Amino acid sequence: MSLGRTPIHIHEAVDRVTKNVSVLDKETVALSDSHGRFIASDLVATMDVPIFTKSAMDGFAIRSEDSKEASGENRVAFTVVEEVPAGRSSDYKLKPFEAFRIMTGAEIPESADTVVMFEQTKETDNGFTIRREFKPDENIALQGEECKEGDVILTAGSLVNPGTVATLATFGISKVDVFKRPVVGILSTGSELLEVEDELERGKIRNSNTPMVAAQLERAGVEYKKYKLEKDEFESLYKKIIEILEESDAVITTGGVSVGDYDLLPDVYKKLGAEVLFNKVAMRPGSVTTVAKFGDKYLFGLSGNPSACYSGFELFVRPVMNLMTGSKRPFAPVINATLAGDFTKPNPFTRFLRAELNFVDGEIEAKPAGFNKSNAVTSIAESNGVVILPGGTRGFKTGDKVKVMMTDVTSGAREFVAES
Amino acid sequence: MSLGRTPIHIHEAVDRVTKNVSVLDKETVALSDSHGRFIASDLVATMDVPIFTKSAMDGFAIRSEDSKEASGENRVAFTVVEEVPAGRSSDYKLKPFEAFRIMTGAEIPESADTVVMFEQTKETDNGFTIRREFKPDENIALQGEECKEGDVILTAGSLVNPGTVATLATFGISKVDVFKRPVVGILSTGSELLEVEDELERGKIRNSNTPMVAAQLERAGVEYKKYKLEKDEFESLYKKIIEILEESDAVITTGGVSVGDYDLLPDVYKKLGAEVLFNKVAMRPGSVTTVAKFGDKYLFGLSGNPSACYSGFELFVRPVMNLMTGSKRPFAPVINATLAGDFTKPNPFTRFLRAELNFVDGEIEAKPAGFNKSNAVTSIAESNGVVILPGGTRGFKTGDKVKVMMTDVTSGAREFVAES
Repeated sequence: MSLGRTPIHIHEAVDRVTKNVSVLDKETVALSDSHGRFIASDLVATMDVPIFTKSAMDGFAIRSEDSKEASGENRVAFTVVEEVPAGRSSDYKLKPFEAFRIMTGAEIPESADTVVMFEQTKETDNGFTIRREFKPDENIALQGEECKEGDVILTAGSLVNPGTVATLATFGISKVDVFKRPVVGILSTGSELLEVEDELERGKIRNSNTPMVAAQLERAGVEYKKYKLEKDEFESLYKKIIEILEESDAVITTGGVSVGDYDLLPDVYKKLGAEVLFNKVAMRPGSVTTVAKFGDKYLFGLSGNPSACYSGFELFVRPVMNLMTGSKRPFAPVINATLAGDFTKPNPFTRFLRAELNFVDGEIEAKPAGFNKSNAVTSIAESNGVVILPGGTRGFKTGDKVKVMMTDVTSGAREFVAES
Repeated sequence: MSLGRTPIHIHEAVDRVTKNVSVLDKETVALSDSHGRFIASDLVATMDVPIFTKSAMDGFAIRSEDSKEASGENRVAFTVVEEVPAGRSSDYKLKPFEAFRIMTGAEIPESADTVVMFEQTKETDNGFTIRREFKPDENIALQGEECKEGDVILTAGSLVNPGTVATLATFGISKVDVFKRPVVGILSTGSELLEVEDELERGKIRNSNTPMVAAQLERAGVEYKKYKLEKDEFESLYKKIIEILEESDAVITTGGVSVGDYDLLPDVYKKLGAEVLFNKVAMRPGSVTTVAKFGDKYLFGLSGNPSACYSGFELFVRPVMNLMTGSKRPFAPVINATLAGDFTKPNPFTRFLRAELNFVDGEIEAKPAGFNKSNAVTSIAESNGVVILPGGTRGFKTGDKVKVMMTDVTSGAREFVAES
């Protein structure tokens, strides 16, 4: 029995899926709602930062020329003439050996040019003495030293992280232009599936893929809607897919993409006239994972096998979602790690294994889940990454060097290289 | 002028803050709201997984003994007597050389003990032939092979990630016991601060720390409330802190912890009778960062300097928040990286620098932000991690090995080791 499908390499599959993704429209959100979104257009500084030259320390602002003769043997004395707290400044013109008592963040008065920290002084009745020369601009943050008016401060496609929020606040940007988030419809197929609340029946299992994919979408910052199939047969499925396509930017189905008698999705793609990007990937598990495009919309046909469904999502769905929202870093970072467990099976194709990543002395130890089948459920629940075993390899042993996908990183990587 | 504070090492500071954190109460949430929360009690399997022995492939279920004589020269023929789709089973008793046509996930009928994949057969008029022997249990997932009834499947303190959600769904757990999330009050002090919407005035800057900390809390899955100080003087501040303490599990203030004339928080801690865990850390920036406890509640006195505020949050606030919600992995992972830029300043104390982390061939390249002061704002906005330069070191050069805190990882590490 021939399956009539040609497997392609995982890199080729990722390339096909992530090329020509249309970025969604822009929308404007409040600064307080912008965290986790992607900036929709370059932002240009409307002022210098700092906007004025200010003290970087609590201390005294003086004229540097007055400190020239100061040394351990010849302490130079200053008289404090005025206080300058943060939020204020002073137009008083310092005379020789006069000083402002100044706080961190306060504007440096024009007549001063350097700051002596409290810790660098000895107190006197009406001021302080110092024991060394201070050059101009010590302990001072100069106007424009962090950025100048007209500088590009954020480029389109930047993730709004906490640092970005601070930058936007500094420039008084209370409304932020970001790309819209995709809306995704999830549909699990398979007549063996019960809902989470259902009592078990003979031959049936509860649907765990829909809630898992929903959580994966939530982690990726994507809105979703769950759909149910009334009847597991072709017409029903076809109509449901049309309905979801009308309401979403992408459809995720789980199950129904293999070669079984009830795997109806290949025919649905055909009837839709969707462009099938691939229907067989040289990977385990999930070789039958299928991705098709219908106009700008994506149809992700993930495997019904929970592990294949999980890694198929991380490999294909997540980068596309990130690209739709304008991200420049759509991929999970892939980092070197050391295997903390044997894996004796040969890997004719690239293999993806969920794993618990631990961080020891700056290195990553990856303990693949489900090796020891007796605790597969627990270990999968505790997994925080995915081990990649390259295709064309025999078994792997504890201590072997491998690569892992860090699926729990909110900011991603620019490229995806599973194997070299 | 003596500051009367003794700096402690960053490891000692983190230890003091993260020891004896009281975990918050439990609450019950819907499975669909449980992602990102922490499981409040061990969960025990109420059934075997798989709950029945099932086919792992699309193909034919046969009696393995019938395949004994099969070879390339001697193909053995089988007659298909019944179909078993997923969700069903069959009580039919196979006779010799009979087979069920069976789909992935379908229960294996009792009279069969192995599965031949479609790809391993050649079709005939009423069935198929095979060319090799099949041992019992090939292409079969055995009842209980992933976990047995009574096994502990999730331990208290586990993060609910997408894999966990799938596990909970499998066991029909639609309501999940999790730990409550902390509620935190944020208050920025400093009379130089304007709101984001405000027009700039001489000597004043917009408050960027409150929105930044709010985004950091959001990233850590913590609820927050922003507070405003009516008047930047002691009584006002004291009353406001009391008010926040009554409504929150922790108070985050920014600014006001240094030795300036308007740094009022040290006196507030004293009047409250709060236990100051430390008020000086041997680190740059943010050496004046102060953490105090008032009963089980925390008072985080972060620096008003935005970079110090950011790293102080990641070092102290985030692990405490995670511990309050029951996490067993409260810390940001610390990973080896290569510096992609020179840093010529000496580091008498441990230094924390925001940085852009890039992932190249499985290694991390860390490009510290704000080195080149002219683009400090942009580079901080693009940062996705923090470089740690150990105390007692001179400058660092491009290519030097350093450690980085991965602040964008949603699942954390069990330990925090900034330097060895």
